[in-house]
Amino acid sequence: MISQTIDFTRGVPAPESFPTEQMAECAAAVLAQGGQTEALQYGKSYGFLPLRAWLAERQGLSTEQVMLSNGSLQFIELLCQTLIQPNETIFVEQPTYDRTLTLLRRHRENVVSIPLESDGPDLDALEAAIQREVPKAFYIISDFQNPTGVTTSQAKREQIAAWAEQFGFWLIEDAPYRQLRYRGSAVPSLFDLAPARTLQLSSFSKLISPGTRVGTLMGDAAVLQQLAQFAEDTYIMPAQLNMAIVNEFCRRGYLEPQIERLKALYQPRLEAICTAVQNYLPATPYVEPDGGFFFSITLPEGVTSTMLRAQAADAGVRCSDGRGFFANPQDGERFLRLPFCALTPAEIDEGVRRLGEVVQAISPELSRV
Amino acid sequence: MISQTIDFTRGVPAPESFPTEQMAECAAAVLAQGGQTEALQYGKSYGFLPLRAWLAERQGLSTEQVMLSNGSLQFIELLCQTLIQPNETIFVEQPTYDRTLTLLRRHRENVVSIPLESDGPDLDALEAAIQREVPKAFYIISDFQNPTGVTTSQAKREQIAAWAEQFGFWLIEDAPYRQLRYRGSAVPSLFDLAPARTLQLSSFSKLISPGTRVGTLMGDAAVLQQLAQFAEDTYIMPAQLNMAIVNEFCRRGYLEPQIERLKALYQPRLEAICTAVQNYLPATPYVEPDGGFFFSITLPEGVTSTMLRAQAADAGVRCSDGRGFFANPQDGERFLRLPFCALTPAEIDEGVRRLGEVVQAISPELSRV
Repeated sequence: MISQTIDFTRGVPAPESFPTEQMAECAAAVLAQGGQTEALQYGKSYGFLPLRAWLAERQGLSTEQVMLSNGSLQFIELLCQTLIQPNETIFVEQPTYDRTLTLLRRHRENVVSIPLESDGPDLDALEAAIQREVPKAFYIISDFQNPTGVTTSQAKREQIAAWAEQFGFWLIEDAPYRQLRYRGSAVPSLFDLAPARTLQLSSFSKLISPGTRVGTLMGDAAVLQQLAQFAEDTYIMPAQLNMAIVNEFCRRGYLEPQIERLKALYQPRLEAICTAVQNYLPATPYVEPDGGFFFSITLPEGVTSTMLRAQAADAGVRCSDGRGFFANPQDGERFLRLPFCALTPAEIDEGVRRLGEVVQAISPELSRV
Repeated sequence: MISQTIDFTRGVPAPESFPTEQMAECAAAVLAQGGQTEALQYGKSYGFLPLRAWLAERQGLSTEQVMLSNGSLQFIELLCQTLIQPNETIFVEQPTYDRTLTLLRRHRENVVSIPLESDGPDLDALEAAIQREVPKAFYIISDFQNPTGVTTSQAKREQIAAWAEQFGFWLIEDAPYRQLRYRGSAVPSLFDLAPARTLQLSSFSKLISPGTRVGTLMGDAAVLQQLAQFAEDTYIMPAQLNMAIVNEFCRRGYLEPQIERLKALYQPRLEAICTAVQNYLPATPYVEPDGGFFFSITLPEGVTSTMLRAQAADAGVRCSDGRGFFANPQDGERFLRLPFCALTPAEIDEGVRRLGEVVQAISPELSRV
């Protein structure tokens, strides 16, 4: 019997996933090596060179095509300050990552939402939008999307990549969850399909620890050079010490086994949320994700996330406001994001059970089991 | 005999000053403590709470009056994005820190330069400027200024603090060198004198290591709250792991002894540059700093830093372009900043000797020893 409040609000990693012993070993190695005082001195705004070189080699890129920053969100801010001019048109999926919407609004971009289907963006809507106006960029989370859990199919990726090349717009592919696939097999990334047109963001936050705060950007060297100059004028350089620790972690071969451990930890949690939603919210449509951090449901008609959140809090469940993920907030009134990685299977079961009771109380005829 | 090029361009700490063993000990402690997984998880945009609490207690402030970020320059960007609106008037010292000028220009601020004298800003010029227009803020580096080395006298600080309170403008006091005083005794900071009107920036970059990238801002809780919200939307939070390491360093009592070691290391370097300038550049006016990283000279009339830099490079000395430190670049043509902390006394002597030869070659009648 679980008595505490169950928190479905934040997409954070499970604290028990942090590889603290290996990080301690790596920190000791960095700080023991006299030759690594570069980790402690001022450095380039591109980020710690040995880690850039490791990432570049793994991806078959040049070092100039890899930049590091204080988390990947910082790159979206930098892109809005350099590549993208105010009032330019940016396409996003609907729904999409709420913090990206906040930054696009801050910089007064013209945000156009492309509805997301269970296999990726609605291509008819995308084509029509391109014909109305070719955007400067399409911001897309192609794997295990935040907030829906949707993965864009290979066929849709190929079409999106082809259009980006044909019409000459950028793909800003946000891929922090890409390596966390719990079933099925990987689909080529947009960066694989249209490397000259894609700026791929990722991060070690979901793979090692958010506290290291190491975001990555891979793509066009000229765009990165512009960003690096702007970043130097903004914060001189990202924190080097933690990048040196991450570099050591990668070079010791710890990353792949860590990812396997994460998959083993999170896969049962994904199973648990699928089963729980089938059991306790049988009438609600959902997409079954193949990886990542997020599960999402559409609440029954007549039930809004505002109604749900108030009553759920009384029932011991915290939920996010679904409207935050929509450029037009009222479109998200029935949307509910359920991050599942930082909860145990038992907590997930109990949390969804409570949600089911709340939904039934609000709308008994729609949610009866 | 020193054969390598001597670099007077960057104000970086001496690599031999980094307390790597103690940092290793602190990193191990952070990563050994299960209870410190907060250092590895997502956290607040204000920065790592235990370090904020330590700083607050040391200064007699509340925790809400202390914020941390990825270096202190990031705070200037955040201030330009929140507190200061585009086209507002900001006073700076002339000369001043070049990166601040870059950020003020980026945000289209109206920059008004107040000439700097050997004991601080020219108060007549400051008073006249206030009477023309009360600024939103006065950006001032009151201790061992970058780039001049000037320390503002207590009498001038008291007048500046009084005017800030009387006319209602902010003092943005940039104080990264304040604790590195090699002679004389400390003068109260502007934050000491006008706490309600001062936002004091500082950093652990010059005290522990730039690679930790921990900047601090102390001041008005309402201003900080606005910055913290904006920072959350920009980069979620600063890197926590390195803040946790710095926190451990401070709480183990390592900071004060480290500062004493820095003073012992840098004080002879300050003596060396004073002596070398007296020996090799006897005709050039200079201010003798009492601490910090920077010494500066005014080149003889007829010698510009552009002329000097080209010939100095051939003679094995690298110098910065003095014009970068002036809002009106041509006012800095004869200004030369000489950072002295990352060079040994012998390198300083040799570097200034070479500079003396170059100056004499350009302008023999002015610089004859």
